[in-house]
Amino acid sequence: MRPILCVGALTMDTIFRLDRLPDGPGKVIPLDAVEVAEGMAAAQAASIARLGGSAALWASAGDDGIGDRLIAQISGEGVDCSRVRRVTGGRSGFSSIFMDRTGSTMIVPRYDPDLMAAPATAPDLTGFAAVMTDVRWPGAAALALAAARAAGIPAILDADMAAVDILNRLVPLATHIVASESAAKLITGEPTPEAAARALLGTADFVAVTAGADGCWWSDAGAIRHTPAPRIDAIDTLAAGDVFHAAFALKLVEAAPMSETIAFASTAAAIKCTRFGGRLGCPTRGEVEEFLGR
Amino acid sequence: MRPILCVGALTMDTIFRLDRLPDGPGKVIPLDAVEVAEGMAAAQAASIARLGGSAALWASAGDDGIGDRLIAQISGEGVDCSRVRRVTGGRSGFSSIFMDRTGSTMIVPRYDPDLMAAPATAPDLTGFAAVMTDVRWPGAAALALAAARAAGIPAILDADMAAVDILNRLVPLATHIVASESAAKLITGEPTPEAAARALLGTADFVAVTAGADGCWWSDAGAIRHTPAPRIDAIDTLAAGDVFHAAFALKLVEAAPMSETIAFASTAAAIKCTRFGGRLGCPTRGEVEEFLGR
Repeated sequence: MRPILCVGALTMDTIFRLDRLPDGPGKVIPLDAVEVAEGMAAAQAASIARLGGSAALWASAGDDGIGDRLIAQISGEGVDCSRVRRVTGGRSGFSSIFMDRTGSTMIVPRYDPDLMAAPATAPDLTGFAAVMTDVRWPGAAALALAAARAAGIPAILDADMAAVDILNRLVPLATHIVASESAAKLITGEPTPEAAARALLGTADFVAVTAGADGCWWSDAGAIRHTPAPRIDAIDTLAAGDVFHAAFALKLVEAAPMSETIAFASTAAAIKCTRFGGRLGCPTRGEVEEFLGR
Repeated sequence: MRPILCVGALTMDTIFRLDRLPDGPGKVIPLDAVEVAEGMAAAQAASIARLGGSAALWASAGDDGIGDRLIAQISGEGVDCSRVRRVTGGRSGFSSIFMDRTGSTMIVPRYDPDLMAAPATAPDLTGFAAVMTDVRWPGAAALALAAARAAGIPAILDADMAAVDILNRLVPLATHIVASESAAKLITGEPTPEAAARALLGTADFVAVTAGADGCWWSDAGAIRHTPAPRIDAIDTLAAGDVFHAAFALKLVEAAPMSETIAFASTAAAIKCTRFGGRLGCPTRGEVEEFLGR
């Protein structure tokens, strides 16, 4: 299978699992802790690889030690990181995340705005099956989505929360839009995920709105269908959206029926939510299929 | 000048400076953020080097990437890290720290208990001017303090808060005790730093109790003297105690008069408190002397 190019964020997250979030100054001993290279596009690329697909990453890192570790960790997942841009003098993104037993988080991210400068040229998409972009590196996302359309391959937008002008710039460029509930409401002004999905009909070949435990609303020949989310006890929803997008993109380029694609993505994301560690909780393809009872 | 051997903690701290600490789930963008190798003994060794002295570190790290970075960063400060023990399969210590504009902190540290197993043998102290230990690696501290006494060089204990049995084990081994106010109160049961200092008289050749902005009480020929702390606007007190201890040990091995030693240490720690970044805020010797008006 030809690879999917993931475009956008790459950051080093340190995630601490706590009995409960701190409510003031003091010291809290964690139940567990991991340092994991993720960020939306990077987590998507690594998840595609874990699900048995092939992915490359186009993202920005500083020319610092964290950048080396980011690339080493994502490359270690089998992702082609040769397109990652190293910005001279830039500081790679990182964050610390305190998470309680229910998955509620305090997040402090440190991003260098210089890293997000728009690239000069579009990527060469020869050999790629699809492009998937997030909203964290808008200049690159716009170039990549337009190039994917020109190349006649899926131009997938992970429309998560961002400034509305970024969303309004990227939405018209995509052939496939998978929006979070909050971003879909922001774009459309509608009060529910179903109404937002309906309002998005026609803006792209395919639209979907994901609403966590409430499931996913998606377009099917001009109508909106709903796929419920598997019932699980969520302990860590971090990167669950990225796992959904990864599974979606993988099934899309495999030309699976859309109902199967959405069920597969919903299940992959649900399994992830039962495991601590951000994107490290992404299941394998076999685990998803076993859950689906195949 | 012969080097000082610092014995104890080595951890990677990520410090985020925030407008204010989070009061619940959500995302907070920091004013600043640094990743800094510290921990008490490591911060002391690095601060001795920054103050113009010579230091070696005896501490434990895992055989992981964080361990490599810890050693690279502390070595980069000019500290001899050849004695740092790498524990096979161990995970190096790390923590994330959220700090507000006044220096109040939320700290979540991740320490591997396997790293703190007692070493089998005492260090070879040939060529060392003094030993300084913290309370974070008690087995090594006990060996090092006893060996320093046997070698006839200062055996300095940084008596910070720890389990009382650890403090009670280490206090009798030291020739010089510099205790934090809270630890001194715990050891002696006294209600004030001055009374605690008085109660500690005779337990070692020299005793001192540091009380932050309230200054330092220290022993002088059977009496207790007080040195006030310079008045500054503190924004980050992290590692201020380590800078105090580093400056103290340096002046001690230089055989400076004790009143000068305490003033130097108090000033170095005060300057540190005006700078964000934990031990990275340690001043140079010239900065301390300029502040002191020499």
